[in-house]
Amino acid sequence: MTQRILILLGHPSRDSFCAALARQYRDTALQAGHEVRLISLGELDFDPILRQGYRKPQPLEPDLLDAQQAITLASRLVLVFPIWWGGIPALLKGFLDRVLLPGFAFRYKSGSPFPEKLLAGRHAHLLVTMDTPPWYYRWIYAMPGLHQMRRTTLAFCGIRPEKTLTFGPLLSSTPQRRQAWLAKTHALAQR
Amino acid sequence: MTQRILILLGHPSRDSFCAALARQYRDTALQAGHEVRLISLGELDFDPILRQGYRKPQPLEPDLLDAQQAITLASRLVLVFPIWWGGIPALLKGFLDRVLLPGFAFRYKSGSPFPEKLLAGRHAHLLVTMDTPPWYYRWIYAMPGLHQMRRTTLAFCGIRPEKTLTFGPLLSSTPQRRQAWLAKTHALAQR
Repeated sequence: MTQRILILLGHPSRDSFCAALARQYRDTALQAGHEVRLISLGELDFDPILRQGYRKPQPLEPDLLDAQQAITLASRLVLVFPIWWGGIPALLKGFLDRVLLPGFAFRYKSGSPFPEKLLAGRHAHLLVTMDTPPWYYRWIYAMPGLHQMRRTTLAFCGIRPEKTLTFGPLLSSTPQRRQAWLAKTHALAQR
Repeated sequence: MTQRILILLGHPSRDSFCAALARQYRDTALQAGHEVRLISLGELDFDPILRQGYRKPQPLEPDLLDAQQAITLASRLVLVFPIWWGGIPALLKGFLDRVLLPGFAFRYKSGSPFPEKLLAGRHAHLLVTMDTPPWYYRWIYAMPGLHQMRRTTLAFCGIRPEKTLTFGPLLSSTPQRRQAWLAKTHALAQR
């Protein structure tokens, strides 16, 4: 089935291996006949800090309004990001803090402790790099960045985390290993 | 024993309940005879985005150099922050991404996969607010924000997470409940 795919690059730099993964996914998905849009969060113009928390509205910059519309239009989100300090980069977290507002991503209903999931019907692929060996990240560190993205962010809004590829350790990886990781990304993007 | 305490307020707003918790901790600790400094991250002047990842140095702003020195001097760190989207706010994450650099917080040694912990000898107290009930955050969501702070950040640098107080759900809390949370903070700060 043709998907409307929105790729969000959460690494600030276009020279990163994450950026290479995002481009690989985009190129493959386009060849496979999907509609694809790639947004590099590092190139958007927005304040990553939610200044007053969720108590007072903070007007959305045009780039964030555009990103909200792109999320609404997408049937699949692809999130590409590195794990730093066990979690997602501040750039990606700031994007989520600002964009996934009540009324857009979820809505609390009176009388129920569980919010309405306003982005239901979508699914997600995650491409994640780390300098920790992925097995160590999972079993010793309890993979906080992945639980955060999948359970307390995507699933919270109704987006089903369908597939996650974790690549690491990046720091000591050979060019051959990185080629293999790009090939895995290619295979996933053909779905 | 008299402690040199550094309180880091990770909520961007001074009007937040987190800010009230930070002030409560500061006032009590001062009365108890500790040396105390409170830094509100929202008032620092720094770029929360690590533009090139860890591959290229990004010169530290004066406020971050000062914060590094304050961390070096402290025997106890107190981290006060809300859980948003399961994790820590972008402001606090950006502070960690920028400040906890290799050579300051840890150092990889050749021949060992485990880094040298350069901030060893310190301990930490965490004061955390959330809109999720804390038991649900722990057992259903696998508490990613707490694992991230305690295991993959503090312990990674050698800082022992000694005590965590979680307060929630904040959204529906009564003034009486908040008073009780401030009283718990008061009790902890006397240690």
